[in-house]
Amino acid sequence: MSGTHAHGEANGERAKLLSPDEMEVALRAIGAERYHDRHPFHHLLHGGKLGKGQVQAWALNRYCYQSAVPRKDAALMSRAEDRELRREWRHRIEDHDGDFTGEEGGIERWLVLTTGLGIDRDYVVSMKGALPATRFAVEAYVRFVRENTLLEAVASSLTELFAPTIHRERIVGMLENYDFIDDSVMQYFRRRLDQATNDADFALAYVKRHARSPEQQAACLDALRFKCNVLWSQLDALYFAYVDPGFIPPGAFVPEGAGAPILSAGLASLRSR
Amino acid sequence: MSGTHAHGEANGERAKLLSPDEMEVALRAIGAERYHDRHPFHHLLHGGKLGKGQVQAWALNRYCYQSAVPRKDAALMSRAEDRELRREWRHRIEDHDGDFTGEEGGIERWLVLTTGLGIDRDYVVSMKGALPATRFAVEAYVRFVRENTLLEAVASSLTELFAPTIHRERIVGMLENYDFIDDSVMQYFRRRLDQATNDADFALAYVKRHARSPEQQAACLDALRFKCNVLWSQLDALYFAYVDPGFIPPGAFVPEGAGAPILSAGLASLRSR
Repeated sequence: MSGTHAHGEANGERAKLLSPDEMEVALRAIGAERYHDRHPFHHLLHGGKLGKGQVQAWALNRYCYQSAVPRKDAALMSRAEDRELRREWRHRIEDHDGDFTGEEGGIERWLVLTTGLGIDRDYVVSMKGALPATRFAVEAYVRFVRENTLLEAVASSLTELFAPTIHRERIVGMLENYDFIDDSVMQYFRRRLDQATNDADFALAYVKRHARSPEQQAACLDALRFKCNVLWSQLDALYFAYVDPGFIPPGAFVPEGAGAPILSAGLASLRSR
Repeated sequence: MSGTHAHGEANGERAKLLSPDEMEVALRAIGAERYHDRHPFHHLLHGGKLGKGQVQAWALNRYCYQSAVPRKDAALMSRAEDRELRREWRHRIEDHDGDFTGEEGGIERWLVLTTGLGIDRDYVVSMKGALPATRFAVEAYVRFVRENTLLEAVASSLTELFAPTIHRERIVGMLENYDFIDDSVMQYFRRRLDQATNDADFALAYVKRHARSPEQQAACLDALRFKCNVLWSQLDALYFAYVDPGFIPPGAFVPEGAGAPILSAGLASLRSR
């Protein structure tokens, strides 16, 4: 039987207590293997290999994720009895939702990107054109944070350890490679460079300090794997619908010029095989 | 802006009250457009176009859905104040979990299929090899039934209206086309032919009777669309991982003979483009 690799690893992890530094190494190893910067869709996105319609599809789907993040963070805070944890965590909600000092927040900055890409703002916000798989993955993340232990909820945020690299690649790659992208629409990523680093440092220290048994450590590693799956599966769905084989599910966004529903094209290509 | 078709429809639906018979027509139209018998993966499956490893992948992923159905039904019953609804609904849990009269239940019959396909029972039950997208879609369904109105929860079961046709196609198609499938492993589908028809008749009558305002009717139609998305996106994920482009996510089931993790193959094929 193949495919049991991850299971075997998890059993191994349960065998011994890691030092905080070993725990950090194990967390970072998960990112090296599973963070979505390794996904083929990202190589296409940053490498300038996508058309405008495909970049639009990415941006409007990713909006679902962005817009759910404050609910996820509120769910985490609703479970934290430790006031210091709540105080440290609170600014994440402001970072995304905006505050009242003129900081518009990450969701608004994401809408600058989608508007810059020529997608109607109300259509993006309605999420009507998003892939069902995107919605399911995003809500799985919110639910995970609501229902698992607080420690696992914090650990699931640790994909932010790996985010600065991908944001940097994205800013450079997208500005260089797409004539429909200019610097003004990339402000989301510039701003996140600082935010994500600070947030990840705090969460990493928290997990290293609070995961004190082999079982807790294994649960934290699994939580980070889960979160990597949440991100990865969103790119799987984009690749499937908008790159190859290009089967857009009923009701989802159809880029201009993609012609008839691509399901028909997909079925036609099956018949001709 | 394209892709807003479904939105427009929904607005239209909200404009007027349908008669019970018009409501049935509208529900059946959703199935005709969106039920997963229209998905390319099903054409491959029934048409004998898949290898054994691909059929294994389908069966072990679909197990996640089967095994979640009783939780979904229990969630629905937990919200029903109407004793008659609970009494009518209750046998669905027995149908899947088995009873104590020798009826082993649908989940056990599904494991007869996966075992007949040569997949280790414990591996299937662990769900370790299932695609994350499968798990997310299945849990989205359970959550929908927990959190939406009871009427929407009942309406979301109405994909069963369309199930007998697909079960019949599957029995004939799979027995004819695959030498690794024999009649003994197809008992799940034979049994479901009767069960699904009776269940769907009750749920359809319930929805026709209780959806008394345009808003309730629109919500029921949306619930059925949602459920079609749950089923459809599972086949999208299978097609993506195991047919084309064949990128198996980290940690998911790798069929025998598929060689190295297919992600690497996927990346290699991207580089050579």
